[in-house]
Amino acid sequence: MITEHFINASVTPLESMDTLSPHEVAKLQDISQRGLYRLFRQCCLAVLNTGSELDSTRTVLHRFREFDIRIKHKHRGVQLELINAPASAFVDGEIIQGIREHLFTVLRDLLYVGDELDQCCVGLTESESITNTVFHILRHASAMRPHVKPNLVVCWGGHSIQRLEYDYTKEVGYELGLRSFDICTGCGPGAMKGPMKGATIAHAKQRKESPRYIGLTEPGIIAAESPNPIVNELVTLPDIEKRLEAFVRLGHGIIVFPGGAGTAEEILYMLGILLHPKNRNVPFPLVFTGPAGSEAYFETVDRFIKATIGARAAERYEIVVGDPHGVAVRMREGLEKVLAYRKKTDESYHYNWQLYIPHEFQQPFEPTHEEMAQLNLREGQPDYILAAQLRKALSGIVAGNVKEPGVLAIEKHGPFELTGDKDIMQSLDQLLASFVEQKRMKINHEEYQPCYKIVN
Amino acid sequence: MITEHFINASVTPLESMDTLSPHEVAKLQDISQRGLYRLFRQCCLAVLNTGSELDSTRTVLHRFREFDIRIKHKHRGVQLELINAPASAFVDGEIIQGIREHLFTVLRDLLYVGDELDQCCVGLTESESITNTVFHILRHASAMRPHVKPNLVVCWGGHSIQRLEYDYTKEVGYELGLRSFDICTGCGPGAMKGPMKGATIAHAKQRKESPRYIGLTEPGIIAAESPNPIVNELVTLPDIEKRLEAFVRLGHGIIVFPGGAGTAEEILYMLGILLHPKNRNVPFPLVFTGPAGSEAYFETVDRFIKATIGARAAERYEIVVGDPHGVAVRMREGLEKVLAYRKKTDESYHYNWQLYIPHEFQQPFEPTHEEMAQLNLREGQPDYILAAQLRKALSGIVAGNVKEPGVLAIEKHGPFELTGDKDIMQSLDQLLASFVEQKRMKINHEEYQPCYKIVN
Amino acid sequence: MITEHFINASVTPLESMDTLSPHEVAKLQDISQRGLYRLFRQCCLAVLNTGSELDSTRTVLHRFREFDIRIKHKHRGVQLELINAPASAFVDGEIIQGIREHLFTVLRDLLYVGDELDQCCVGLTESESITNTVFHILRHASAMRPHVKPNLVVCWGGHSIQRLEYDYTKEVGYELGLRSFDICTGCGPGAMKGPMKGATIAHAKQRKESPRYIGLTEPGIIAAESPNPIVNELVTLPDIEKRLEAFVRLGHGIIVFPGGAGTAEEILYMLGILLHPKNRNVPFPLVFTGPAGSEAYFETVDRFIKATIGARAAERYEIVVGDPHGVAVRMREGLEKVLAYRKKTDESYHYNWQLYIPHEFQQPFEPTHEEMAQLNLREGQPDYILAAQLRKALSGIVAGNVKEPGVLAIEKHGPFELTGDKDIMQSLDQLLASFVEQKRMKINHEEYQPCYKIVN
Amino acid sequence: MITEHFINASVTPLESMDTLSPHEVAKLQDISQRGLYRLFRQCCLAVLNTGSELDSTRTVLHRFREFDIRIKHKHRGVQLELINAPASAFVDGEIIQGIREHLFTVLRDLLYVGDELDQCCVGLTESESITNTVFHILRHASAMRPHVKPNLVVCWGGHSIQRLEYDYTKEVGYELGLRSFDICTGCGPGAMKGPMKGATIAHAKQRKESPRYIGLTEPGIIAAESPNPIVNELVTLPDIEKRLEAFVRLGHGIIVFPGGAGTAEEILYMLGILLHPKNRNVPFPLVFTGPAGSEAYFETVDRFIKATIGARAAERYEIVVGDPHGVAVRMREGLEKVLAYRKKTDESYHYNWQLYIPHEFQQPFEPTHEEMAQLNLREGQPDYILAAQLRKALSGIVAGNVKEPGVLAIEKHGPFELTGDKDIMQSLDQLLASFVEQKRMKINHEEYQPCYKIVN
Repeated sequence: MITEHFINASVTPLESMDTLSPHEVAKLQDISQRGLYRLFRQCCLAVLNTGSELDSTRTVLHRFREFDIRIKHKHRGVQLELINAPASAFVDGEIIQGIREHLFTVLRDLLYVGDELDQCCVGLTESESITNTVFHILRHASAMRPHVKPNLVVCWGGHSIQRLEYDYTKEVGYELGLRSFDICTGCGPGAMKGPMKGATIAHAKQRKESPRYIGLTEPGIIAAESPNPIVNELVTLPDIEKRLEAFVRLGHGIIVFPGGAGTAEEILYMLGILLHPKNRNVPFPLVFTGPAGSEAYFETVDRFIKATIGARAAERYEIVVGDPHGVAVRMREGLEKVLAYRKKTDESYHYNWQLYIPHEFQQPFEPTHEEMAQLNLREGQPDYILAAQLRKALSGIVAGNVKEPGVLAIEKHGPFELTGDKDIMQSLDQLLASFVEQKRMKINHEEYQPCYKIVN
Repeated sequence: MITEHFINASVTPLESMDTLSPHEVAKLQDISQRGLYRLFRQCCLAVLNTGSELDSTRTVLHRFREFDIRIKHKHRGVQLELINAPASAFVDGEIIQGIREHLFTVLRDLLYVGDELDQCCVGLTESESITNTVFHILRHASAMRPHVKPNLVVCWGGHSIQRLEYDYTKEVGYELGLRSFDICTGCGPGAMKGPMKGATIAHAKQRKESPRYIGLTEPGIIAAESPNPIVNELVTLPDIEKRLEAFVRLGHGIIVFPGGAGTAEEILYMLGILLHPKNRNVPFPLVFTGPAGSEAYFETVDRFIKATIGARAAERYEIVVGDPHGVAVRMREGLEKVLAYRKKTDESYHYNWQLYIPHEFQQPFEPTHEEMAQLNLREGQPDYILAAQLRKALSGIVAGNVKEPGVLAIEKHGPFELTGDKDIMQSLDQLLASFVEQKRMKINHEEYQPCYKIVN
Repeated sequence: MITEHFINASVTPLESMDTLSPHEVAKLQDISQRGLYRLFRQCCLAVLNTGSELDSTRTVLHRFREFDIRIKHKHRGVQLELINAPASAFVDGEIIQGIREHLFTVLRDLLYVGDELDQCCVGLTESESITNTVFHILRHASAMRPHVKPNLVVCWGGHSIQRLEYDYTKEVGYELGLRSFDICTGCGPGAMKGPMKGATIAHAKQRKESPRYIGLTEPGIIAAESPNPIVNELVTLPDIEKRLEAFVRLGHGIIVFPGGAGTAEEILYMLGILLHPKNRNVPFPLVFTGPAGSEAYFETVDRFIKATIGARAAERYEIVVGDPHGVAVRMREGLEKVLAYRKKTDESYHYNWQLYIPHEFQQPFEPTHEEMAQLNLREGQPDYILAAQLRKALSGIVAGNVKEPGVLAIEKHGPFELTGDKDIMQSLDQLLASFVEQKRMKINHEEYQPCYKIVN
Repeated sequence: MITEHFINASVTPLESMDTLSPHEVAKLQDISQRGLYRLFRQCCLAVLNTGSELDSTRTVLHRFREFDIRIKHKHRGVQLELINAPASAFVDGEIIQGIREHLFTVLRDLLYVGDELDQCCVGLTESESITNTVFHILRHASAMRPHVKPNLVVCWGGHSIQRLEYDYTKEVGYELGLRSFDICTGCGPGAMKGPMKGATIAHAKQRKESPRYIGLTEPGIIAAESPNPIVNELVTLPDIEKRLEAFVRLGHGIIVFPGGAGTAEEILYMLGILLHPKNRNVPFPLVFTGPAGSEAYFETVDRFIKATIGARAAERYEIVVGDPHGVAVRMREGLEKVLAYRKKTDESYHYNWQLYIPHEFQQPFEPTHEEMAQLNLREGQPDYILAAQLRKALSGIVAGNVKEPGVLAIEKHGPFELTGDKDIMQSLDQLLASFVEQKRMKINHEEYQPCYKIVN
């Protein structure tokens, strides 16, 4: 039995991240507004708090309010001092290696984003510049594998799912792993963890060398969705929109498991992009799947999509229920098309430059009450623009559920109010109500208090 | 859905096993009594039949009676042609890499044992010679890691266990893996697979390089206990006694999960050896463990041991119920003692030469009705000798349950008859009856027909 | 016999450098003043022109005026098209791998310096900022090995040396290699190549894994001193001063072989820094050495140093003649002191932050006739400042000898004029005259025309 | 300056050779006739005596008569204690890694040959059995690389050659290395070392991973021809005939540099085999080469071959003088034919099974005075048989020059007497006389006393 809950420890970095300049160390230690200390501490705490069942950033921060992290220069490189760190990150007093890695990837990304990146994009449009920034962050994190044929499957889905659904995500991951696919997720619990566990077993059977379990996160969500240590490439993007862009430019196909508001946000993001005329010919396998018994769930989602952004959207995805083997086979077939297309168009395997992402999907959305109220959830605009608006609505709901500033705003001002065309609002209401009913909104919350209000 | 059940395929070896002489190829193709073809085919079939729920060698051999394997010399090395092979070994028509490896390790071991080994031991006693043979086979299989501190945990237990028990073996494996221990089992399903799966996940989290999942098997048992493909070092010893010796000389500590006759055989083997006066000071961590609820099972086993080979035997093991973390911590402590002892006595880390194994435990036991009837199951002999006799009795029962010659003998002559002192026989009867009742004797057998009869 | 002198070829990058953005490709293709094309072409030509005996940038550029390089995006990554490239870079039509690597390191450094670097140093003094820039370039080039004990020996010396001296540099390299030291040079021919060749043989005998042969260059010198392909880490610093700083912050000890003006520049740079009071306690092994018979040469150098910057400077170096084994042993002893000091002061092994480099040594010096004429070569200033001035004088002479703008300026305006105190000027005159006499100024020049004039 | 000539040291093995059984250790320690101690000591001494200019086994054994080697079992594996070992094997008291490797390869081969090998060949003819034994020894030494296309070039030539010739062998090695060929030699000095040094530099430039420098030796010759430490795969075959067979079955092409009796022996061996009708279609590139100025030497050899075994033999080799690049290009073309032939005939890349070696070339030849006198050096027998006889004559002369038993026999009984047909004897006499004149028989012997007498 572990009885201690807090541990103090010194952690030395992996070799490859062991060369910080004094200037960089100073920035990480800088507790002023300009400095990185606060952000660094918060992300490290999330990384250390792995396996936790808490998805409330605030609760996490409160429980570990005594946690501190200090960075020191030694002759052999930098060293992190952890004070009152969550005991779950340790085994017999030694930090779990995967978590040790995560700590230093966080450090790597925060320094890079804060520092070196600003100038990479002189002479580009704002949209190109964002795409380029995402590329640079991923490349700096060594997340590109230029000569590898398309094999990276993104798995989206809820962090709060039931045992049956969780086991299903493992089975799908196992079938993907048997085909030597790599896995990329948002790196928290639930549908973000199951596929990696399944794939790990299959990769072991296939003797896959250097299997990849990529986790893409961002500072606002990381505390609520601690990366699980199977993730062996953790990249912290600066905001939710760049994280979404990283998913679709890095990944070669997407599987969506049942989930809540966050998953719906991701679906709308993806479909919105694929609906844009410029992407008409770009192959992008997209499969919605869940265990036997999840038919009703997918009907709700399918109905919502058709009712809002239109039936044409439904051509870009396939729904498969209770068939892990079938999902993997479909994905394999889809990736073969991706491969053929990339070859034909001389597009790189490692970054999907040719996917057009409208600027509406790239702009960081700050979900204040005012911004939420002003969302244009009406018909009469291009389908992909409506998708972008709905995406923002759902993003705001996620923030109101689990992100700290969002939760604070809700406490202060009450639920966000959303308005729009009646049909759209009704569809949205039904979708969200089903999430609440199925307890997909938050983990371990007996009585979920909606952070939104549909105003007709 | 897979619909095909048989697959034809060509398989090329791993680089390291790709250099056979024409003479060796000829021996593998030789269908005469002297040749290796029959044995090779049978073992390969077992390897390919992974994941099967059959533990009857005969049923396996019958179902795949059309299976054939041919070996060919090509300019790039040898090639195996598989005809009518079990489809379960393939993914989308491609053989699972782990299984491909296993095929060639079988080939490696059969050729080595048949061929090169006889002369290794000139000038040694018979007992020394057996120990030396086991050493040579393991070394030839690259199963020695000379500079690695003791960290190899052998897991024994039933191949036919319940879901709850299976999940528990995974949890224990996970805790072992978190401590970077390697795992060695008899490499079939059940308690031989669970710990490896758990350890695989933990090793991924700990970024363990080259984790080891060693499976030790022998031709008589392999068809009934197909190695699972997580096993990344498969060694086929020539008989059950050498396999048992390989476990205790290679492993540094042993965990025993609930099981049936085979597991009881292993317990008696280990305790018999540890009871020998020459091994009094040799540390060897030995933990019996199962999930909460298995208390009754372990009481039966404990009572049987004390009633037959004596209370002193109980000093060499510890029973832990429902505490995976505690099991792992005990094992860690035990291995630290092993390490200290090896250092102190200049014993190698990789092979436990100093463990004294009496010749009674090394002689191959052929369980005919006559041999079984003549076993001396009486008091008045040294405890370790009685343990050796009981070990043989249980070995015979395993053969009568799942090994082909044993099953045939039972069909022809009826159950084995075992006689001995009343107390001993009663204890044995109770133990076996409990195994039958708990369905630990065979997989998927609704009504188990005992292959033995206790005669007082 | 090779008859062709020009070759066209397509070259794909090493995996690790195979991810350029379209924006980066555009910059490399940009032939405008702002673009990198011209610089990239020139550096690539130098890399391809390996083994050439030309040290005149202009001659090289003229001979290969038809040379062109184009960069293309392919689905597997970027590809370089080489047109009319020097045949010496190819074997049977295939580019030598080491040269292929060099091409892409040039690309890596030019892009990094041009692009990402500007913002790394906000909030630092100018001097700190330069030091930080050098650090970032080296780190980006993966030239840091944080956990490796000090073992990097910098070898300086002439590119134009005689056979006897060249063989001696090989012998010293061999002795260094036997002690597993890594080698860093300016990466041209002569004393920059010999130590690497010798070390390569010794490293093979010592089975050294990943031996390092680091070449530090800069665009102005690279065409005159083509990197030899043994160099397995080529870093192109933006100017001569940053290159010098890279040598002394990355290297742990320095060996100086006989050479000409460039070598003298390097000696003055190093001694000037070591003379600064802040560096009094920083250990830095510095050995001047040459084959038996080079006594006279070193007396001249020694006399020059003592006569100009003072006898105290001589305490920081040791002269060893005709004893490769002794040089290596002294270096080993020196590196042990470096190790002890870094441990004691918590300084990293991989970058010598604590060495104080006065700003005078960091400022890029543009050797125009005016700047050269204004150098303050007089007594009455701190020794390290005088060293800095003399360093610039010699830097200008190197430029006048082999760098394109320097040579052009001399052609147009006649030799640089240097003025100063009589004693200093006389010493300088003697030093330079001895270089001329010994044909150390340029390769293959029967009659060297001095590019400088000492004006008293 | 090294002043000590003898060093005591403990040496631990490479990981892969660190698992000896107590039984094996006992054999290595056994100083009886049956034991391996004497042979092991002698081979280890040769390995340690690297770089020595002595080629007299006796002188070596005498100078290091105090040398002793002891083998101990430790908990981390075996350990060798070296007493009064040659200081040349050490750098600053540490053994050179390549030499450390060699010590343990000797141990590996002596144990394997003595022990495990006898039974590998049951049921084969004597000739097949020898071929199989060579195969097993090489495979056990991991000298097979099954999937590598033919690229192993054997270099034969004298151990006692002049500087000019030595430099030429380096240049040829450099050109071979540029084409990524691996090198195999008899592993002593001279023409056995030069190609490896040249190839090492070229392999560094080509970034060749795991370049191979294979040395094949045998206990009788090793003391006279200490392996140079660049050799990274040393295999000790049990006798000279198996060593020769290893060369031609493992190698894919052969280059012969100028040499003495040993080289001539090798030439006759190779040509004798290639002349056999069964080998008519087997491609085997064979190039004789030396620096400009060696024309006369090759004319002598060429004339000798034509005059003895016939002009047809000359079709199987090519003579190239003073053209390292041309030699490498011819070898590349030859290896392409070998590749095509192996593919066509389904022969493995790693062992030339299909080359027919008549038994006459395989039988160990013990060069006593009687055996030498009985050699049938007459016409009227098949060319390959005559070649076999001449090969033995030359083998005896090598033994009389440098092998201990041979030298002793000559001292006792005077020179070997050789008789045969006049023309043959005259040709032989001329060949040998030219070797004597050119000082190719022994190193550093001002006045060579012939160990043979041609009797007409």
